[in-house]
Amino acid sequence: MDIKPYKIKPGSQFRLSQFEAGDKSLINGDKDSARAKLDTLRARLESLQELLYAEGRHKLLIVLQAMDTAGKDSTIRMVFDGVNPQGVKVAAFKAPTAEELAHDFLWRVHAKTPAKGEIVIFNRSHYEDVLITRVNGWIDTGTCKSRYRQINEFEQFLVENGTTVLKFYLHISKDEQKKRLLERRDTPRKQWKFNPGDLASRARWDDYMDAYTDAISATSTRQAPWFIVPANSKLQRNLIVSSVICDTLEGLKMDYPKAVEGLEKIVVE
Amino acid sequence: MDIKPYKIKPGSQFRLSQFEAGDKSLINGDKDSARAKLDTLRARLESLQELLYAEGRHKLLIVLQAMDTAGKDSTIRMVFDGVNPQGVKVAAFKAPTAEELAHDFLWRVHAKTPAKGEIVIFNRSHYEDVLITRVNGWIDTGTCKSRYRQINEFEQFLVENGTTVLKFYLHISKDEQKKRLLERRDTPRKQWKFNPGDLASRARWDDYMDAYTDAISATSTRQAPWFIVPANSKLQRNLIVSSVICDTLEGLKMDYPKAVEGLEKIVVE
Repeated sequence: MDIKPYKIKPGSQFRLSQFEAGDKSLINGDKDSARAKLDTLRARLESLQELLYAEGRHKLLIVLQAMDTAGKDSTIRMVFDGVNPQGVKVAAFKAPTAEELAHDFLWRVHAKTPAKGEIVIFNRSHYEDVLITRVNGWIDTGTCKSRYRQINEFEQFLVENGTTVLKFYLHISKDEQKKRLLERRDTPRKQWKFNPGDLASRARWDDYMDAYTDAISATSTRQAPWFIVPANSKLQRNLIVSSVICDTLEGLKMDYPKAVEGLEKIVVE
Repeated sequence: MDIKPYKIKPGSQFRLSQFEAGDKSLINGDKDSARAKLDTLRARLESLQELLYAEGRHKLLIVLQAMDTAGKDSTIRMVFDGVNPQGVKVAAFKAPTAEELAHDFLWRVHAKTPAKGEIVIFNRSHYEDVLITRVNGWIDTGTCKSRYRQINEFEQFLVENGTTVLKFYLHISKDEQKKRLLERRDTPRKQWKFNPGDLASRARWDDYMDAYTDAISATSTRQAPWFIVPANSKLQRNLIVSSVICDTLEGLKMDYPKAVEGLEKIVVE
């Protein structure tokens, strides 16, 4: 699968509104084949994660950002289904605590970055500090621009120290969000996920699209690229995220560690 | 499935050597049915974990202890296959760091205990501080006994504060360990797991069995029981661990949170 169309080139001019949230090109009307492809990708990811863990050399950081209901939780569950939970950690960043606010905005995220052999998924991230903060006017334009630079420098530092960084924006349309919010409102088992506060973000939809556009433009680097993932279709979304992760891990040219010297001669009494 | 035979009653006299590591009674010669049962248990666990997470009231701590190769990693992978990684964390405790050693022995484990709605699996735990330390003579008998009491008090504290605690000893025979060590030694993809240091523990097998017997006797409480799981057969092992977790979660009588007042009237623009 060609993942290039979803990758944002450094310095490229784009607007989120140019991207078709409803794109289903990878399914192409044939859901069964698409599901089979996803199963194959899952099996690949399972092996690749085992290898990453065994080799214990690389670290993988995956950042997930999106509007509410776009499927961050579901992506994590579907893409990592079957992968050893031992080597995969999810760090969810909510409204910062008093202690977190008393530190710089990268403090709490740095603490959760992956160790050697680990995959860490950020469910929301330091990007909230240039999104919700900007939309609500809690930071001014100058601070926001400084933060883009600080984020780039921080991610560059992680990369220089052995971390591979992948960032995904799960792109749904405003109409799709409406559909999903109504489904949550009206389905007893989903009602607990309905947070009336989400409507406040929805009311600022266009401002969020602008904030995402600017943040992604400013921080999609060669070392830590952003991918914009059409996410109205869950299957399309999962196929893209899985492919990008698998291709990236394969690109690391990992190998199982060499056996200790003289292993074959060791006697087990 | 009746989980009682595997549960150690508080204050009961037993020796690990009385337990049949090779027990396959739950499979009873019919692997296909046993696998189907395990699939059913997995699906149950997936729903129960979602409910635990949604309700956000209970915390579940699972302690896994065992001799090398007994299958701690594999149990985690097999039992939690398909469960949302977002709500399940694994904390692996290795040889303590200098900073950890500079604190009391419960400091590093307390930091990793589950939050509301979470499942945390300890891969090894504070029990190493009454096992490897005792077998190697790093602590004396008096310290070891004090630690049993301190562990019971600590776990009692966790329980009083909303944590459910389940502790599993995965029981393999010395012969089975030999088989698995040789398999690791001779299978290229598994050689990285072969740690010649494991042979040192193997050489002290009987001392470890004594240390486990004493520790389990002293710390299997009504609130935080130990289960001794026959683990020569992976299927038998997974069936027991899954059943205990499912039965325990079902016993919590959880429910999805009530929808916010007037939810059905909320308009999504």
